[in-house]
Amino acid sequence: MEFKAQSIAEFLNGTVEGDANVTVSNVAKIEEGKPGTLAFLSNPKYTKYIYETEASIVIVSNDFQAEKEINTTLIRVDDPYKAFASLLDLYQMAKGTKQGIENPSFIDPTATIGEGIYLGAFAYIGKNVKIGNNVKIYPQAYIGDNTIIGDNTTIFAGVKIYEDTRIGMGCILHAGSVIGSDGFGFVPTEDGTYKKIPQVGNVVLEDFVEIGANTTVDCATMGSTIIHKGAKIDNLIQIAHNCEVGENTVMAALTGLAGSTKVGKNCKFGGHVGVAGHLTIGDNVTLGAMSGVTNNVKDDKTMLGAPAMDISHAAKVMVVYRNLPQLRDQIITLQKEVAQLKGQQSN
Amino acid sequence: MEFKAQSIAEFLNGTVEGDANVTVSNVAKIEEGKPGTLAFLSNPKYTKYIYETEASIVIVSNDFQAEKEINTTLIRVDDPYKAFASLLDLYQMAKGTKQGIENPSFIDPTATIGEGIYLGAFAYIGKNVKIGNNVKIYPQAYIGDNTIIGDNTTIFAGVKIYEDTRIGMGCILHAGSVIGSDGFGFVPTEDGTYKKIPQVGNVVLEDFVEIGANTTVDCATMGSTIIHKGAKIDNLIQIAHNCEVGENTVMAALTGLAGSTKVGKNCKFGGHVGVAGHLTIGDNVTLGAMSGVTNNVKDDKTMLGAPAMDISHAAKVMVVYRNLPQLRDQIITLQKEVAQLKGQQSN
Amino acid sequence: MEFKAQSIAEFLNGTVEGDANVTVSNVAKIEEGKPGTLAFLSNPKYTKYIYETEASIVIVSNDFQAEKEINTTLIRVDDPYKAFASLLDLYQMAKGTKQGIENPSFIDPTATIGEGIYLGAFAYIGKNVKIGNNVKIYPQAYIGDNTIIGDNTTIFAGVKIYEDTRIGMGCILHAGSVIGSDGFGFVPTEDGTYKKIPQVGNVVLEDFVEIGANTTVDCATMGSTIIHKGAKIDNLIQIAHNCEVGENTVMAALTGLAGSTKVGKNCKFGGHVGVAGHLTIGDNVTLGAMSGVTNNVKDDKTMLGAPAMDISHAAKVMVVYRNLPQLRDQIITLQKEVAQLKGQQSN
Repeated sequence: MEFKAQSIAEFLNGTVEGDANVTVSNVAKIEEGKPGTLAFLSNPKYTKYIYETEASIVIVSNDFQAEKEINTTLIRVDDPYKAFASLLDLYQMAKGTKQGIENPSFIDPTATIGEGIYLGAFAYIGKNVKIGNNVKIYPQAYIGDNTIIGDNTTIFAGVKIYEDTRIGMGCILHAGSVIGSDGFGFVPTEDGTYKKIPQVGNVVLEDFVEIGANTTVDCATMGSTIIHKGAKIDNLIQIAHNCEVGENTVMAALTGLAGSTKVGKNCKFGGHVGVAGHLTIGDNVTLGAMSGVTNNVKDDKTMLGAPAMDISHAAKVMVVYRNLPQLRDQIITLQKEVAQLKGQQSN
Repeated sequence: MEFKAQSIAEFLNGTVEGDANVTVSNVAKIEEGKPGTLAFLSNPKYTKYIYETEASIVIVSNDFQAEKEINTTLIRVDDPYKAFASLLDLYQMAKGTKQGIENPSFIDPTATIGEGIYLGAFAYIGKNVKIGNNVKIYPQAYIGDNTIIGDNTTIFAGVKIYEDTRIGMGCILHAGSVIGSDGFGFVPTEDGTYKKIPQVGNVVLEDFVEIGANTTVDCATMGSTIIHKGAKIDNLIQIAHNCEVGENTVMAALTGLAGSTKVGKNCKFGGHVGVAGHLTIGDNVTLGAMSGVTNNVKDDKTMLGAPAMDISHAAKVMVVYRNLPQLRDQIITLQKEVAQLKGQQSN
Repeated sequence: MEFKAQSIAEFLNGTVEGDANVTVSNVAKIEEGKPGTLAFLSNPKYTKYIYETEASIVIVSNDFQAEKEINTTLIRVDDPYKAFASLLDLYQMAKGTKQGIENPSFIDPTATIGEGIYLGAFAYIGKNVKIGNNVKIYPQAYIGDNTIIGDNTTIFAGVKIYEDTRIGMGCILHAGSVIGSDGFGFVPTEDGTYKKIPQVGNVVLEDFVEIGANTTVDCATMGSTIIHKGAKIDNLIQIAHNCEVGENTVMAALTGLAGSTKVGKNCKFGGHVGVAGHLTIGDNVTLGAMSGVTNNVKDDKTMLGAPAMDISHAAKVMVVYRNLPQLRDQIITLQKEVAQLKGQQSN
């Protein structure tokens, strides 16, 4: 697809400065702009790139004043970032969305399926599954028995959803994610072997949840593992049985929550974070990357380190930690000095 | 499925106290009990919940004496936890197990398949594969050439098993796990590129092994990567080429073993543990979450930290670590005091 | 397949010592050799095993001089390791390679496919996909629209490739890996919810890249996430949006790069490494296992620890860290001694 500068400007209620007939077919960052791409300039830090970018069109603010010659076509708008974002949305829509049912796919006769859906080839829909309207299920996805999926949810290729899962509206599940696998529950027996505890609960993903590629969310032993509304879970994350993740909480890749831990609303977890089981993490908690949390955390705290500490304390600890060899040398010096002082006194 | 209190009591050799006709269709923790659910009370810590639970039926001990009015129906038995667990087993069985071969699936004509199996749609069975009796292979699973799978093993949706794998009886492989991918073996060459070492070994999973969702077990360079009988491996774990995991060892999510490391029997690893390559970890070893192991570990040790230390020492180290800023201040104070003392002496 | 000692010796330009008619059907390490296997002896540390190995054939150097009786057949060559490696290559080739198109598979009519390819059952080829010659695509793999795959690349079972991906020649993508999933990009809004930023970029894997099982590589927000020529990425690794990984860089399992980080050429990362976003890691950088990198790293550095420090400094820090309880005791002793000295002076 190609778009003319003139058409873009009209869509954005902006004005063209330069060649109104130049076309673009892709977007780029201003510092990486190539011919045929559209970029934007919002952050003044990047102003220098506008004089050298090869992007064919750059969206700039009405206030922008060039200090050198500019070779690209400009489109002037009130808020370049917002304008660019709305173009991205348009671009996504213009690419067209998948629709229809590809063959072969497997739909159990007891399943019910809404309007306007996409069902890719080799996708599997189990018994009594209920799928809402405008749901997209990409090839090779597996939807286990009795699962319910709300309107406008997208399930990418190869997602595996175990039976009895509840998924809300407007969710996005990325390729390879696994929802509802058995919780890791075993009872040790006298001979050293483990007896499996049947995991009879399920997983509930509320509306507008996003689950990253190859992330795993285990079902509850009993009851539900719940990811609340609007939470965003990155790739390769482990959410164990009976956990809860609060509304609008975001977690970066390779993080793991052990069983029965409850995380509050509006939290932000960095990558590689580990949280032990049966803990309560409050609302608005920030955990730095690689934090290891072994105790409950109160609302509004920012923690770092393993074991995790309040960030202001953790920062101080880490400064001293880096200087440990120097600290040890200072102690050795003190020991010598004190020995000398004692020697002198006893003389 | 609905079950009457009377029927449940008969199955458990228990006695009903309350409405023998009340029915339940699901189970719940006593503190989360809702109408229509069955709960149990075993741990005295939870006794308070029996007076407020909405669960329709609660299994209690014959010895239990109510101190307030109870609104739920009780079933009295000798051991409530054991009784509940046997009900969960029954519930699992009552849900019915999958059987039969769904279409389309792919079975190479040279493969042999036992009695009573389930083969889901879009599952793939390669050349010379041998599958035992009562094996369940869910949709979109891939069983590579020459693989052997023992009786009563369950392979969930989308599991990928490379060629020549040996899987015992009663194993469970969760969705998205990958068994037998190439070990990470490369030889550096003079021009800085790497030459791949062909990985011609395989993976052996002995009987009653459980592998978590999206976990990866690489094949051996030569010989076998072996997970011994009864080991339980959680989600998103990496077992590298030529590793061995001992009988009844359990590992929590996001743990990784580097190549050729041997782990003993009855070990317990927390989450996010890393073990370097070519190490020997003894029997009955416990590694705390996020431990980083760079040396061999003897039998019966409990280790923590990165680098991992004996837990009693690690606990002491971590106490001082948290207090590092205070320690530094103490050293600064000492330096001043000693300087003063020296000054006074030289006067 | 069985191979005679005589035939192997001829292939290797070597000479047989012992039974030239003995056959082998597999390879083994010399210390694990069993009848019917072929091993090699290159490292003098392993010489002791040649007197006890059960391997039927061992490849040894022309210079090797036995000090005891040897029961196995020897094949003498100039360089036993090189000879063995060439046999492994031969063995791989002799196993035969998959070819042809299995049914059912899904090939969009707009896709173009080269000569000599293997396309497994239940594989999916989207619109306008271009696949080179001798490409192997195993069962249940998903190739999204507009993707281009170069000659001689192997895509194992269940790999998921999102639209617009570019994959070079001679690449290997292991089972369950996900290429091109959305970057983790969200803009917080005033009501605490997050608005998704459309991810319109793609992923580029250059020639001879290897991607491990269940590894995830996110697409760029705009532009491309790039894995350069010859880079080798192990299992369960997260490469975030807009990252670059330099030529011949190798990364071990469970490592994660946050968004927009650029890693140079010929780097080596251990397992469980975390690198924060928007960083630049130079060429020839080595990061020890479990390192946490929060700052740019210059060429040729070797770093360790979280936060990562130069390895020589990190080694010193860790020695003191392990001795922290002793250090604290020394400070307590010093405090007592200084207090005593002060007391004596004031007397």
